[in-house]
Amino acid sequence: MSKPLILVTNDDGIVAPGIRALVEVAAELGEVVVVAPDSPQSGKGHAITIHDPLRLKKVKVFTDIEAWECSGTPVDCVKLAKHVVLKDRNIDLCVSGINHGSNASINILYSGTMSAAMEAALEGIRAVGFSLLDFSFDADFRPAQPWVKKVMQFMLDRPFKHGQLLNVNIPKLPPTEIKGLRMCRQADARWVEKFVEGRDPSGHPYYWLTGEFVNEDQGNDTDVWALENGYVSVVPSMHDLTNYEALQELTNLQQA
Amino acid sequence: MSKPLILVTNDDGIVAPGIRALVEVAAELGEVVVVAPDSPQSGKGHAITIHDPLRLKKVKVFTDIEAWECSGTPVDCVKLAKHVVLKDRNIDLCVSGINHGSNASINILYSGTMSAAMEAALEGIRAVGFSLLDFSFDADFRPAQPWVKKVMQFMLDRPFKHGQLLNVNIPKLPPTEIKGLRMCRQADARWVEKFVEGRDPSGHPYYWLTGEFVNEDQGNDTDVWALENGYVSVVPSMHDLTNYEALQELTNLQQA
Repeated sequence: MSKPLILVTNDDGIVAPGIRALVEVAAELGEVVVVAPDSPQSGKGHAITIHDPLRLKKVKVFTDIEAWECSGTPVDCVKLAKHVVLKDRNIDLCVSGINHGSNASINILYSGTMSAAMEAALEGIRAVGFSLLDFSFDADFRPAQPWVKKVMQFMLDRPFKHGQLLNVNIPKLPPTEIKGLRMCRQADARWVEKFVEGRDPSGHPYYWLTGEFVNEDQGNDTDVWALENGYVSVVPSMHDLTNYEALQELTNLQQA
Repeated sequence: MSKPLILVTNDDGIVAPGIRALVEVAAELGEVVVVAPDSPQSGKGHAITIHDPLRLKKVKVFTDIEAWECSGTPVDCVKLAKHVVLKDRNIDLCVSGINHGSNASINILYSGTMSAAMEAALEGIRAVGFSLLDFSFDADFRPAQPWVKKVMQFMLDRPFKHGQLLNVNIPKLPPTEIKGLRMCRQADARWVEKFVEGRDPSGHPYYWLTGEFVNEDQGNDTDVWALENGYVSVVPSMHDLTNYEALQELTNLQQA
């Protein structure tokens, strides 16, 4: 039996430590092809490049692994992987990450890592975004790797029926303190933000976003709860943003 | 009674004809403040600017309307509007658009117009994204304006309970041929894409995204159906991307 074909991407860029940790795991499970951004693309959400051409270049970053860097966003990388790099080949799984920092709760909306996985899912490819709750460049991804492997193995062996996209976040804990996987819903948390205002060397004003993540969602079935309690959170996600409760209410209002 | 405060933004940029048409309608209903991108930001999705400072500049674009242009994405504009331009003021409604081109179906994921409205909704502000199914710069927005006004009036007068975000698309039809508003779910359509490959003047390869929108969702309750049948489509949307059906299935698998 031939090995499954696994596409690896991320949003921190092809030289980030997190993608290296993910490639190591993927190489144990299948044939790996990497198509990732040539520069950091955090916070790029589901952005695509439509007004400019994209560049795509074969690079030597990982030992014995085919790798390409792309000038665009994480979503661009997935599109280029499907239509150019892996043209006519069946991609068995797309994994994105391991992101440096959490993509739990509403961070899925801003995350290039999760948007890349979402894009693969839109194309009918099973996909998982992985994130470690550690922003630092020197983050230790080793405790995360067994959990990454477990989830990837599950997706390759036994894809679940309803949907095919997972948002997986891993707490920053020593291996022995991680309690296991926990299926969750996305917490209804938010960012309390402000802009740091300053003056550039020419005296012109600038504004720089900063903020604090606040979770007032008290459920113990959320990803934020799971992570705070030592679990790896697994949220099945989807691209249908219809608010069906509101749709029902509006239909009633319209008919009233 | 004081007039409602209406924040106007878009993704085509502050000098696009579509935002002018939206500002005209908003000015009939409330006090208007515009904070919009200084350059086209189509396809930017929910991107935010975190690694760079933002610029914000008061500009004279609309007669007697306070307007600011921002160097960032549509989502950045909403954040700057809330935290800097309209600091401490209560925003009654945020409207985004009128977009040049459809944001029906999965286009909501890629759309800067809809992401700006989504960002406002995340901040607890009622929000609507408006789009006209006409990509051209010379698009006639006048037939759309009465429908824009009707929806805005509804949101100001009688906000519905479940959710507060609407994705409104308007067909490109003469006024007399538009049949009315229709509440819909997001169609499960997709883009069939490819990259045009070329060589730049220096002989280096480039890839440029192109594609065709294909709807295989046969439901007559979708936004795509409504638009094809002469209705203005209204999809209530939300930021919870949890796939609850899949969550149930995964939980069962986990316990098995």
